[in-house]
Amino acid sequence: MTTDAKAGLLAILRDGGARTRAELVEMTGLARSTVAGRLDVLLSERWIVPQREAVASGGRPATAFAFNPGAKLALSADLGVTHARLAVADLNAAIIAESSAEIAVVQGPRSVLGWVIETASELLSGLGRDLTDLCGVGVGLPGPAEHETGRPVSPPVMPGWNGFDVVRHLHDALGAPVLVDNEVNMMALGEHRATAPAVDQLMFVKHGTGIGGGVITDGQLHRGAQGAAGDIGHVRAASAPDDLVCACGNIGCLEALAGGAVLAGRLRELGENARGARDVARLVRAGHDDAVRLDRQAGRDVGEVLAGLVNFLNPTAIVLGGDLSRAGEHLLAGIRETVYRRSLPLATQHLQIRASGLGERAGVVGGAVMVVENALAGTSLG
Amino acid sequence: MTTDAKAGLLAILRDGGARTRAELVEMTGLARSTVAGRLDVLLSERWIVPQREAVASGGRPATAFAFNPGAKLALSADLGVTHARLAVADLNAAIIAESSAEIAVVQGPRSVLGWVIETASELLSGLGRDLTDLCGVGVGLPGPAEHETGRPVSPPVMPGWNGFDVVRHLHDALGAPVLVDNEVNMMALGEHRATAPAVDQLMFVKHGTGIGGGVITDGQLHRGAQGAAGDIGHVRAASAPDDLVCACGNIGCLEALAGGAVLAGRLRELGENARGARDVARLVRAGHDDAVRLDRQAGRDVGEVLAGLVNFLNPTAIVLGGDLSRAGEHLLAGIRETVYRRSLPLATQHLQIRASGLGERAGVVGGAVMVVENALAGTSLG
Repeated sequence: MTTDAKAGLLAILRDGGARTRAELVEMTGLARSTVAGRLDVLLSERWIVPQREAVASGGRPATAFAFNPGAKLALSADLGVTHARLAVADLNAAIIAESSAEIAVVQGPRSVLGWVIETASELLSGLGRDLTDLCGVGVGLPGPAEHETGRPVSPPVMPGWNGFDVVRHLHDALGAPVLVDNEVNMMALGEHRATAPAVDQLMFVKHGTGIGGGVITDGQLHRGAQGAAGDIGHVRAASAPDDLVCACGNIGCLEALAGGAVLAGRLRELGENARGARDVARLVRAGHDDAVRLDRQAGRDVGEVLAGLVNFLNPTAIVLGGDLSRAGEHLLAGIRETVYRRSLPLATQHLQIRASGLGERAGVVGGAVMVVENALAGTSLG
Repeated sequence: MTTDAKAGLLAILRDGGARTRAELVEMTGLARSTVAGRLDVLLSERWIVPQREAVASGGRPATAFAFNPGAKLALSADLGVTHARLAVADLNAAIIAESSAEIAVVQGPRSVLGWVIETASELLSGLGRDLTDLCGVGVGLPGPAEHETGRPVSPPVMPGWNGFDVVRHLHDALGAPVLVDNEVNMMALGEHRATAPAVDQLMFVKHGTGIGGGVITDGQLHRGAQGAAGDIGHVRAASAPDDLVCACGNIGCLEALAGGAVLAGRLRELGENARGARDVARLVRAGHDDAVRLDRQAGRDVGEVLAGLVNFLNPTAIVLGGDLSRAGEHLLAGIRETVYRRSLPLATQHLQIRASGLGERAGVVGGAVMVVENALAGTSLG
């Protein structure tokens, strides 16, 4: 069986352009009647559209079928600790409308999701579309969420969210399938599909108020057994003092040593006006000595934890996102310095360590990718 | 397209028992002529054999086709630092003959591979088979190897092996395709397929002279970008003193703190006759106080590194192999103690931490699995 056959009709059309019925039969090895039946379903659901073109060998014109990226829309929400972003994307996960607001996740699920519902309607009507055009809704949360049920699990920074039925709440209001994931998983997925689709192994680190991670193995988001994969903030940092207590209850966690909230606190002790990660980034960009020094050291601390993960997973690329990744090269330099010193030479030989190419949009792009891939798989014709 | 269709004819027959031509057409959605053509090739290469059986509905008997596990044989060599094991397996990766010897990898490639070649012929002739029955040869080495080329890469404990063409050397003598991998990767693969095939995420740790790892993600061996994945011995251990120098040139590595060779050295300082990991295991089994104490602490040190990997990967199971894993529960207890204390509750909720079910055979079983899966994929009919 060929790879093309495995990928299915819709994937062939999506990735490789328009094809005729005869071409699809030849490429897949499927029976002619099977191909015809599947094309009929795809046409009736508007996933594909017919195009008329002449046959090269001079016979009568044959109809070619093409993927239709505007057939449906994906709604994608990236709900961070202190700010939220909502986007509408087409079936190529290209963003066609978006909105953002300073909405803190501590305002609770009804308030935050209320903003999502209201803003979704505004964005859709601005596009001349409506809720019936949605093929799904992707939601990223700043804490662990069970991917199967979409319920947040004991999220430390999200009072009121524990066990809240995000899926049902949004589905009742929006009428489309809802997928919930950790926001860093979504960022990893978005970054991979949009900027590094050929990279099999990618590690994404979000350095903002907290420190989180997401991991792509063999081109797929790795969620782990309970959907809890990707945490790096609560790994013990070798450079942490023995009495450093973390909000999670453990000692010596990376986030308690080098997270944006902790760095902001140190700058406040030095008399600076720094409430959170964004203020730290602002001071670093302004060249503030202490902020730069703390940022560089935070990079080394993160690098120390990443070095072990690089040895174990041998990724092709490490991508850095979050507010502190947008404050210049100091953080990245600290990470590179430590990873190249600490990891095995074979594992760092071709390792790329870089800032996110999508910046603040990584999360909403990833949510759109998640929704579209799920919707396409859900046609059962993929 | 159904999952069965994706898996292919041979996989259906291998996993699900005998099937008739009509059943295969129905299960795959492939054209009747396509199925017939593929079955002819599989029959001519003896991957499958015909079986005659009556049709339930009372018509004429239809031929069912069944996977033929004895059609070919796999040769599998696990070449450790101090001992070597060679096995012959069928296409179900079941071992049907084996041999082991105290051959150290420092004897160099010609000597060690000479033993492999000689012993292979003895094992095959004992089975009434010969080299033409081999569908492949799997070789596990105690150091990093480029999976694509099979060449060892700067292996620290293997003088004379750097860049040696293991594939060509064995292929010239044995005439079958040769696959080379790190021995702990092979152990992880063998343990997964034989004892936990339903587990998607598995981490394997070999604790012997050194400390190595292998990782299964989404049911597949994760080799990483350069085939270097799985190292845990050279991750910095948080509990290591700052002046602990490792043979790799770095400081604070887990292997320099808790490897079997290091534990043996500490026991020698205490006046015991302990040359390597096996002697440590012997003393632990005998209840020697210092050996038990060192073994338990080694478990805690390994657990500290594993805790971070558990947070990041959220595996379903951690499996412990190697000489020290066969010395009772002390090492495992130390690992469990630290992982459950240090990792996130969500990631350890259902985590299983256990000793290898295959013991000393994990490597050769994994090598056979690797060879068989490669050979079946290579029929281009999978």
